[in-house]
Amino acid sequence: MVPTDAQPDNSTGSVVALCGGVGGAKLALGLSRVLPDERLLIGVNTGDDFEHIGLHVSPDIDTVTYTLAGVSNPETGWGRADETWNFMEALGAIGGETWFSLGDKDLAVNVERTHRLRAGESLSAITRDICSNLGIPVQIVPMSDDPVRTLVDTDVGPLPFQNYFVERQCVPVMRSVVFAGADSASVQPELLATLQHRDLRAVIICPSNPYLSIDPILSVKGMREALQSVLAPVVAVSPVVAGDAVKGPMAKIMSELGMAVTHDTVAQHYTELIDGLMVDGDCEHITSKLAVMTGNTMMNSLEDKISLALDVLKFADELAAGRKIIRERHA
Amino acid sequence: MVPTDAQPDNSTGSVVALCGGVGGAKLALGLSRVLPDERLLIGVNTGDDFEHIGLHVSPDIDTVTYTLAGVSNPETGWGRADETWNFMEALGAIGGETWFSLGDKDLAVNVERTHRLRAGESLSAITRDICSNLGIPVQIVPMSDDPVRTLVDTDVGPLPFQNYFVERQCVPVMRSVVFAGADSASVQPELLATLQHRDLRAVIICPSNPYLSIDPILSVKGMREALQSVLAPVVAVSPVVAGDAVKGPMAKIMSELGMAVTHDTVAQHYTELIDGLMVDGDCEHITSKLAVMTGNTMMNSLEDKISLALDVLKFADELAAGRKIIRERHA
Repeated sequence: MVPTDAQPDNSTGSVVALCGGVGGAKLALGLSRVLPDERLLIGVNTGDDFEHIGLHVSPDIDTVTYTLAGVSNPETGWGRADETWNFMEALGAIGGETWFSLGDKDLAVNVERTHRLRAGESLSAITRDICSNLGIPVQIVPMSDDPVRTLVDTDVGPLPFQNYFVERQCVPVMRSVVFAGADSASVQPELLATLQHRDLRAVIICPSNPYLSIDPILSVKGMREALQSVLAPVVAVSPVVAGDAVKGPMAKIMSELGMAVTHDTVAQHYTELIDGLMVDGDCEHITSKLAVMTGNTMMNSLEDKISLALDVLKFADELAAGRKIIRERHA
Repeated sequence: MVPTDAQPDNSTGSVVALCGGVGGAKLALGLSRVLPDERLLIGVNTGDDFEHIGLHVSPDIDTVTYTLAGVSNPETGWGRADETWNFMEALGAIGGETWFSLGDKDLAVNVERTHRLRAGESLSAITRDICSNLGIPVQIVPMSDDPVRTLVDTDVGPLPFQNYFVERQCVPVMRSVVFAGADSASVQPELLATLQHRDLRAVIICPSNPYLSIDPILSVKGMREALQSVLAPVVAVSPVVAGDAVKGPMAKIMSELGMAVTHDTVAQHYTELIDGLMVDGDCEHITSKLAVMTGNTMMNSLEDKISLALDVLKFADELAAGRKIIRERHA
């Protein structure tokens, strides 16, 4: 057993973690247990956000929030533990849409967020309050306060993300992905400021789906440039494990886009952005010129999450020592 | 035991019932069990409607709907039976407003209604669909599709209805009531058409609070004139029983407005509108010149509700036989 606040990392400097839902949230939890509270900022994908039955749903923000609040559902990977479904059942009985499940407790966050967004508050401010009320000591911010919507072009036509992901269970063949609104969206102010601060220690791209969870973040106007300008190391954790995705449609998507399900594909996807890639298993086929660290990236237990967080931070700190060389490659 | 569809009333002509929440819903249920489905239209107060945490709440429509669908909570008089409160608990935990209780099942109707209203549908159309899905065979319509909001002027200042009624539990002393928007609202089209149709058999004003539940209906532009023009008898059931209200703040309000809690006060309140008043107990002190029928107006059991419905219909039909005399008084 690892005490939840064991192995504190006392290095100075802030760490930015970029993530989507399930897999990313696990590493974010690990990082939150090893970094001082004020030294971690988690920037979350909002390309999956959508308006459903009149509610503003932010699936990835909520997955990260629930995970860090200790109220997430470990079986589904989304939603809350000990959830009830009386709302959904009653909604179905009056002819409402039921293809997207909102549990009774989960609904509270969605109703409150929608209400406050309509009143003119920012998604950042609302998320901060919800996190604070749930006792989360680290900062979770949306990638942007402006709407960016992931649209998947498929063999059955273009589909909004949740219609592709949930309603159609990722069955349609993906052809490309578009992030509507990204060109005119601004990076969330605290996220941008932390990236630009000289005190930045590392940027960690969590093992989320590169195409559906990380690319929306990278698509926000100015985000890619901000990452390329940081002086601190940028490290990604490859979501590939044993030639497959741990969870979700990543492997299927890679095949549909004509790419091999390998660490090298991930490395090439993030080329020009990252200084190092953390991989599980064999790394000999990585052709991209970047630093690679091998280790266990499967995060079943809290111990795994903390262990990976410590490994990634160590990797980043080692890269920071050779920072000039890394930056030269980017220059 | 009375079979639920016993004692059918086979007279022709439509009956309009006007009501608020709890008490009115009980008589509406009784009427629905004795009239042919297509011969009853229930016009419901929407002055209590309000926007709460971004949701359009219609308390009286829902009470009538749940009562007629057989899913109402018999203990509270509002909300649904076998309700759960996980949404409210989770909402409180993230700092949301919890003074107005919305159960997990009840929330389904509120979310669906809000969503569809925002999409431009009328409250009538949404209510009709919800009722249809819940298997309600009679028509329930809002008094108007336009917003009318009951505002209570009190010794602590003006209060929106729900803030007076629920948040402050009717403690402030009432001075007057205003129905904002009533002047520019239109009577719900089917309600108006049924009132104006030559086939009208009777209008029944249910034993709801005259000041807070029936007056908002009467305040809608054209409603009072429509009622005064009907050829069929208009009969009210007095909500006073044994010098008190069966439930709710009616008696307190009557006192605050300087009126005695008597059938005569009710009769005077509805003067120029009704042809007959159905009262429980002693009627000798009624000074208004109108027909009075005594009977049991307490509705504890379904048998009571059916029995009162039959009594009121009989009363109305008897008045109809002497229609000319009644109309002359109004002329």
